[in-house]
Amino acid sequence: MKRALLILSEGFEELEAVAPLDLLRRAGVETVAASTGTDLTVAGGRGMRLQADRMLDDCLAETFDILILPGGPGTDQLRQDTRVLDLVRRYYAAGTPIAAICAAPVLLADAGVAAGHVITSFPAREGELRPQVKSYLQDRVVVDGKVITSRGAGTAEEFALALIAYLLGSAAAETVRAQIVAR
Amino acid sequence: MKRALLILSEGFEELEAVAPLDLLRRAGVETVAASTGTDLTVAGGRGMRLQADRMLDDCLAETFDILILPGGPGTDQLRQDTRVLDLVRRYYAAGTPIAAICAAPVLLADAGVAAGHVITSFPAREGELRPQVKSYLQDRVVVDGKVITSRGAGTAEEFALALIAYLLGSAAAETVRAQIVAR
Repeated sequence: MKRALLILSEGFEELEAVAPLDLLRRAGVETVAASTGTDLTVAGGRGMRLQADRMLDDCLAETFDILILPGGPGTDQLRQDTRVLDLVRRYYAAGTPIAAICAAPVLLADAGVAAGHVITSFPAREGELRPQVKSYLQDRVVVDGKVITSRGAGTAEEFALALIAYLLGSAAAETVRAQIVAR
Repeated sequence: MKRALLILSEGFEELEAVAPLDLLRRAGVETVAASTGTDLTVAGGRGMRLQADRMLDDCLAETFDILILPGGPGTDQLRQDTRVLDLVRRYYAAGTPIAAICAAPVLLADAGVAAGHVITSFPAREGELRPQVKSYLQDRVVVDGKVITSRGAGTAEEFALALIAYLLGSAAAETVRAQIVAR
């Protein structure tokens, strides 16, 4: 069974966390939401309080098949969290796929792993990111090697389906797509 | 300010609850997630534990501008909850809009308010619902007077945007659509 680690930090964008959690679990990927805070319960940017599965510190020694970074208004605060930047660097060095949506691709740049990649992000982050990456696209989801990026809450479902396709193949993604009546 | 009441019960479909909560709040609608259980924290069908804003019993005496029913594997259990069926009947009689997605349109039929309406639902519920409604459509979102229905987790974003358009007009929905980079 494939395993995914999803970072949940104060001010996360709710749909950007819940779409990967929901759809990857439907596809049979064990998806662990890990809290970066002091409590399992984490408040999202729109005030929803979601309970993480585990504390991030308890996940650092384990191996996952992908790291998923939701965006949201809490992203700029998350940039100060060296555990997360170190995790990105370590996963990248190990060849583990890293997925980031909305504002979260700035964490890839901060960790120093974005320079060689084609990426996208939330439109308002384009100006900041464009000089730091190999190429910036305005596509809804961009898969470039082990780095997968996407644009916002309205692309979260496509992002999640792309992660399923990446981990398990396109037939698995199509099964989930049909099950949820996605476009 | 418009106010929405969203029912959160054990086994709710996470995206079908979170998409309306997230997007209606972005549009400035005060959206209250109300727990039907014995605790504010409610577990969804894919294991996510979301904290409701209030207990349903504490919301029954208040007036809202719309009632929203997410679907999910918990829907059949929710059919036994007379508080919810009574609420649907009371809101319908008062002319308050009622929105149901996925399996939740069966609650409208159970409450006796679906017979005169054109509706849709999760595809697997079509056989059960078709004989009980005026007309059954396979559209992604159906707005028929005060009854708004939709199909599944993969239509939850369109459902939420339709609710914004219904409550606040299409310009408000287009603003949120652009903000989240939706299609």
